Amino acid sequence: MTAQPTTENRTAQLMDGSAVARRIVERTAARSAALVESAGVTPCLATVLVGEDPASVTYVKMKRNRCAKAGILSRHVPLPATTTTEELVATLTELSADPTVHGILLQHPVGPHIDERAAFEAIAPEKDVDGVTMRSFAAMGFALPGFASCTPGGIMRLLDAYDVDPTGKRAVVVGRSAILGKPVGMMLLARDATVTYCHSRTRELSSLVREADILVAAVGRPEFIRGADIKPGAVVIDAGYNEGNVGDVEFAAAAERASLITPVPGGVGPMTIAVLLEQTLDAAERLSGTSA
Amino acid sequence: MTAQPTTENRTAQLMDGSAVARRIVERTAARSAALVESAGVTPCLATVLVGEDPASVTYVKMKRNRCAKAGILSRHVPLPATTTTEELVATLTELSADPTVHGILLQHPVGPHIDERAAFEAIAPEKDVDGVTMRSFAAMGFALPGFASCTPGGIMRLLDAYDVDPTGKRAVVVGRSAILGKPVGMMLLARDATVTYCHSRTRELSSLVREADILVAAVGRPEFIRGADIKPGAVVIDAGYNEGNVGDVEFAAAAERASLITPVPGGVGPMTIAVLLEQTLDAAERLSGTSA
Repeated sequence: MTAQPTTENRTAQLMDGSAVARRIVERTAARSAALVESAGVTPCLATVLVGEDPASVTYVKMKRNRCAKAGILSRHVPLPATTTTEELVATLTELSADPTVHGILLQHPVGPHIDERAAFEAIAPEKDVDGVTMRSFAAMGFALPGFASCTPGGIMRLLDAYDVDPTGKRAVVVGRSAILGKPVGMMLLARDATVTYCHSRTRELSSLVREADILVAAVGRPEFIRGADIKPGAVVIDAGYNEGNVGDVEFAAAAERASLITPVPGGVGPMTIAVLLEQTLDAAERLSGTSA
Repeated sequence: MTAQPTTENRTAQLMDGSAVARRIVERTAARSAALVESAGVTPCLATVLVGEDPASVTYVKMKRNRCAKAGILSRHVPLPATTTTEELVATLTELSADPTVHGILLQHPVGPHIDERAAFEAIAPEKDVDGVTMRSFAAMGFALPGFASCTPGGIMRLLDAYDVDPTGKRAVVVGRSAILGKPVGMMLLARDATVTYCHSRTRELSSLVREADILVAAVGRPEFIRGADIKPGAVVIDAGYNEGNVGDVEFAAAAERASLITPVPGGVGPMTIAVLLEQTLDAAERLSGTSA
């Protein structure tokens, strides 16, 4: 590999999401055991999957496996690909009312024939442990108590684990989805970063990326962010996960310039699931009246 | 005044919020008359004022006068400064249930002893014509149908009235309040601008302002934005309104560089009230089942 024009010829420290996530899952397992012990309540996450998209099937399986490790029951609710919006809303409304269910995950995407927003809004706010409802978004926007969207929540936890204080920093978020780009920008803003949202219509993306002290790449396009554009010393959060285990950032070139960088896989991914589990415990404790 | 280093020595065109607002109020008055005629329903805005802060008293009076011009009844609900959160929530819940009320305005601020968020959330979403609830914020964030916060909504209307297309433009929002900075940034993002949020913890504000094709100043500090920092040709929206009729931008110097600029007063202010009236009509038509 050719030398990059870095100020120092160092290599970035990896942000080990797997290790940080493991500690969160361990703490969650301990809280789960305590909840069973003190209140006789076993925390339960309902996982709702519409259709059989292979990637979605894999994601849900991973989440359920991780639940088992954290002492969380998972109740799987597979629905046929032909499910209508009305049927999905009815299922989510039932789960919202079921006292033995503490958290609800609707695996995204649900298929183009379904009104996904209507489905998300059928999830009771107190069980929205995946942070997908309008209320949860507004809570992130206003820095009010509530459940974070899991990937943005995981990113903030990872920054904290590596003592990155966003205050006064230039944060650039590339991507503006409802469950990733938009809420992570709001959470960085709440932590006093100066936040810029970039997206498909942004001109001069490179020059904006070059100003980023904290870069969050969330576009889902392999190696879309050029390593040469990373500001020396920047913190690079790659929330992309594309075919062939490739992120949204040119990893090797970026790692020569960044101070901290997330690997793909093993960076943001494990954090997302850890936050899902932790928030399920938060919900279970609150719903059973045992939270501190 | 000394010469400024502008590319051209022109003066910006004024964005005449008073004139644009007048047209909106006229259209609203016509819709109001049609609603009385077709459904026998007179649109009604409830204005809730806690205490007797002179500025708030003036604002509410202006809004009620403007309602009268648009054929909207206003029901004034003055509450003593000693009102508790519980009492205020009870009042707003009653108004939310009252079929003769179509829109509810809770004048901000309500006093430090009141949980303003709890009060706002007591407003039924379908009557939140001032766009202050969490649901309305999320609707702006996700570009879903819903009521805009009135000042952000007014700013977007003003941009449209002067054919300013935000697509691909660098928009810089200075200020991050829940009813102005944050939602106007979300609305600009939904219209495909590249949006940067600046605030009290932002470093190098000047250099960010200099990059703004569209600048929204919403800090409430007189002449906080230096005219010399305005990018030549920029569109300058001054949402500040400080003592002595002074905005947040150094007007004269900014007007030498900008292509379009809002005066203070007569720019954003009248638009805010116009959007409040228009959204009250939207609510009245929907609640009476006569909307298109």
